[in-house]
Formats: sequence, structure tokens, C-alpha cells
Amino acid sequence: MSTQPFIVAVDWGTSSFRLWLLSVDGVVLAEHRSHEGMSEVAGRGFETVLESHLSALLAPSHLPVIICGMAGSRQGWVEAGYLSTPADVTDIGGHATLVPGATRQIAIVPGLAVRSVNEPDVMRGEETQLLGAHLEMPQGRRYCMPGTHSKWVTMDGALVTGFETHMTGEMFAAANAKTILVHSTGGEGPVDARDPAFLNGVRDGWTRPEKTSHHLFSIRAGQLLHGTGPDESRARLSGLLIGLELSGAGVRGGEEISLVASGALQRLYHAALTECGAKLRDIDADVAVRRGLMEAWRSHAAKTGDRKRA
Amino acid sequence: MSTQPFIVAVDWGTSSFRLWLLSVDGVVLAEHRSHEGMSEVAGRGFETVLESHLSALLAPSHLPVIICGMAGSRQGWVEAGYLSTPADVTDIGGHATLVPGATRQIAIVPGLAVRSVNEPDVMRGEETQLLGAHLEMPQGRRYCMPGTHSKWVTMDGALVTGFETHMTGEMFAAANAKTILVHSTGGEGPVDARDPAFLNGVRDGWTRPEKTSHHLFSIRAGQLLHGTGPDESRARLSGLLIGLELSGAGVRGGEEISLVASGALQRLYHAALTECGAKLRDIDADVAVRRGLMEAWRSHAAKTGDRKRA
Repeated sequence: MSTQPFIVAVDWGTSSFRLWLLSVDGVVLAEHRSHEGMSEVAGRGFETVLESHLSALLAPSHLPVIICGMAGSRQGWVEAGYLSTPADVTDIGGHATLVPGATRQIAIVPGLAVRSVNEPDVMRGEETQLLGAHLEMPQGRRYCMPGTHSKWVTMDGALVTGFETHMTGEMFAAANAKTILVHSTGGEGPVDARDPAFLNGVRDGWTRPEKTSHHLFSIRAGQLLHGTGPDESRARLSGLLIGLELSGAGVRGGEEISLVASGALQRLYHAALTECGAKLRDIDADVAVRRGLMEAWRSHAAKTGDRKRA
Repeated sequence: MSTQPFIVAVDWGTSSFRLWLLSVDGVVLAEHRSHEGMSEVAGRGFETVLESHLSALLAPSHLPVIICGMAGSRQGWVEAGYLSTPADVTDIGGHATLVPGATRQIAIVPGLAVRSVNEPDVMRGEETQLLGAHLEMPQGRRYCMPGTHSKWVTMDGALVTGFETHMTGEMFAAANAKTILVHSTGGEGPVDARDPAFLNGVRDGWTRPEKTSHHLFSIRAGQLLHGTGPDESRARLSGLLIGLELSGAGVRGGEEISLVASGALQRLYHAALTECGAKLRDIDADVAVRRGLMEAWRSHAAKTGDRKRA
């Protein structure tokens, strides 16, 4: 196994920055995480921020960089466009956009778009995670990628036939901190995936999604009438909104789903999907995005090489 | 018709204050509206604020005051408790709480509570509006009272057999201003009840409530991919959340519903309920709350008189 740096892989989101120095075998030689997301970086300049991390790592100046995430959006560094579904997920690297005028080779992966008139959808960053997840477990047909904006993807082999975003994480954050529910949930703190209030919330949201806005208010009433505490209230709020998502995604008992997640979110969605009887394949989200970035770089380099030879 | 002031009627909510000087026939002799809601007033003192309005109106010091709304909550002026469902709505006046030590007679109406273990609920202020609406149209069995926290009430004669709150207005405000959707909706501005985007949103929310958190994100994607403008985006957001509420309330075509509302909200809910095929009886919310306050005062005074005679 090589310990020589081969590529710099970056997942650059709206509010987070993650960088890995990878060997040719995909071994993580170094990792940087920060809150220098797109919205924070815009003023200072993307290249400045990236190069400051690379110089701290003593990364050689010839080392190329592959980036996925919101850095490729219109408000980001360089707009990297979208591939329209149905799209072969292994094509994303070949359609990466080179950052013009940079001191090293820097390529940004495109997002995916559902260009439907009535229910359009977009993803940016998750397509790379999806590529990695597909390579980890090629037999998957349904992928759940939870987050601020959870993605549900249907695949036929490497072909992304469609996907849907559910803004569960953001609805949770808004309801938890910006509505009357803040008085009941306390607004802060983790949710325990084993809390019965979480699992009951999942079940109520999944089986009676139409009651969501009533069930949410009932959390407040439970505090007023029964003295329900903040941990239980927050767990129920989280469960209700994840349950709504699982209902909207059409999750049925016995269904096989590939869950691409890590950390606290992985625990919550694993518990929620299990509560609904799904059969899960777990794929670590960090592993998936690194593998996706590496593979995207390889396709990009191969295509560039082809072009040079032609 | 008398033009002598008989009673001061006040609807004192979390963020609003409305006061009417009424004659014995319920004629409005004067009206004050302000933003001195409970959360703003708490520091200055409820009596100070009330008396400043009354002295501006030259209201005689013997004139009694009847109040409904959040002023009767634990965080309000004097806690006025809740009547538990099933509850006779004409009983609320008889259970009003007198403010102790005030310079004039001031009574606060209790709220209503559903003391269920799994789906508790509360209202405070709307019970008075409901009383007025019931007196206006006693034949109603289902009442829709839209707002920040919309109330759906089932009645059997004057008996409130149950109710459900849907926090539609607050979810709209949070999604519209505190999530990524603000970039699509512009965050401000009215929604036109005749906008096809509103009515399509209502229909989508009503028929596919489980897709709500996906449909919300799709508003953002519509802006990115199709250039959908802020008015259309905001109208769809409003329609989707009202449609979710109508689905949760179990609205069916042909059903008779008493809509207690006024202003912009009345137009939106009237259009939404009509879109779903409901048969509407319209009751003006301002008329209803004034009539409810007057009736609550009469019951309160009658009971106090009985007690004095006993």
C-alpha cells in the first residue's frame, strides 16, 4: 500500500469543508474538517482557503484536487452544472469542470437534476457519495442519504433513474428553534435513537403523515397539560419528521434499502427504518464520499488523457 | 340601539391586542388595535397597558372588561385555566377568572383542553370566537378557524366534542423565512388566493400529504432549474401547507364546514376549501370574537349575580 499522496479530495458544502489527502489506494493520509462552508468562504475566496489547508499539509504543488458539493453551484467557486436523470452515476467524473487559472489541476464534479415540470429536484455533493456507495454495494436499488436535505435515490445498476429530496433536517431545525416548539424541546441537544418517544414519533409520522402539523402542535400541548420534558419532546419532533419522510419515500416493510450515513444521523435513520420493517444495508457516508471522489478523479483523468492523446 | 358603553371586550394574544368598546346591543362604539401582545407587554404590566387604552377612550372607571386569549395563560396576566373537552362552549363565561386587586371588574375567559395522553391539545382565545360563531350559526358541526395555529373543532349543538390544532401558519412562516426556501420565495409579500400555484399546492398537499417535505424542496429546485419566481414559489408553499392541513383535518368533498376567518386568511382558506369541494358557511372572525366576548360576559355576570343573591 502506498503512503505517497496521490490526490486531494474535498467535499465542500454550504456550511462545511472536509478535505482528505489520499494515496493511490484510497488510504487517508491526512484529514481536515472545518466550518469554512461555501457561505463563509465566499468573501475570502475559495482558492485562498483551499491553498491554506494544502500548505498546512505540505501538499506538493503538482497534486491535483477533486471537489464535490456546493462549491460547484452558481453561488460557489465555479458552476459545475448538472447531469439530468436518467444519468449514469459513473459519468460524473468525466463531466467534471476544471477551475480555470488555478495554480494546480482542480476539478469540480457536477450535480444531478430531475428536470420534471411538476416536481423538479437537484442534488450536489450527494451524487459523489452515491457513486462511492454504488461501488461499495453495486446491488442496491434504493439509497437513503439522510441529511439537512435527505436524498432518496432509485438506481438500476449504475443508472440513477430518479431521486427525491426531503428537507427533513432543515424542517427539524426550523421547527425546533424558530417556532413555539422551542419552549417544549429546549431547542438544543441530541436525540437518542432508542428513545420510545422517537420511535413512536416515527411510527405516527409514517402511518399518519397527513397529521404532521397537528402532531407537531400536540408536542407543545403535551408540555402544557402533561409536563412532557424537552428530551422527550425533541425526540418526538425528530421522529415525526423522519416518519413523514419515510412515508413520502414510500418505505414498506421488507423492502431493501441502502442507508448511506454516519454518526448520529446514521443511528436515527437506522432505528427509524428498522421500526418500519426495512431491510438495511449500511454504508458509511464518509467512506462513500471518499471513494466517489477518487473514482470521479480517475474518470476525469482518463478522459483528459484520452483528449490529450487524440 | 344604545350608544352607551356597556362593556370593554379584549382579545389579547401573543403578538396582538384588540379592544372594543361595545354597547349593550353589541354595537362597536370604539376599536383599538396594537402590537402590544403578551410577549411585548409582560415587562410593562398588563393593567398599565389596558388602562392606558381605556383612558384614551375616556372609558368610565366602573366599566367592566372581559378578556380572552393568551393573557389568560400561565405566562400571561392571570392564569385562567382550561375547560376539558367534551365542554359546553356556552360555559366559558361562567368559568371566567376575575383579576384580583384590579381597579375595575376584569374577567378572563378560560381556554379549552383535550386531555388525551397521545394527542393532547389546547386552545386559548379561539374558544371565545367559537362561542360567537356557534351563536351566529348554531347548526354548524365542523368549524375551521385558520391562523398561526389553526383550530379544527367538532361540535354537537353547543358541545365541543373535540378539536385539533394544526400549526400551519407558523410552519409557513418558519419555512418561508428560516430555511433555504427564502431564496425562492423572497420571504415577504402576500399570497393571491386565485394564483394557480396556490391552488395546485393545495391539491398536492391535500391528495399527497406524505410528500410534503419533498414538495417543499421541489420549490427550491423549481427556481434553480426553471427560474420559478418568488410570488409563484410563495403561493405554492402556502398552498402545500394549507393542503396538508385540510388532509389532516380529513376534509372531504361535499362536507359542510363553518369557516371562521377574516381578511387575507379568509380568502386563502375559502379558496382552498372550495378547491377540495367543501360546502362553506362563512363567519367573520372579528364579529365572532366580539359576540363571544359579549356572551361570555353575560354568563359571567349572571353567575356572579346568582352568587350574590344566594
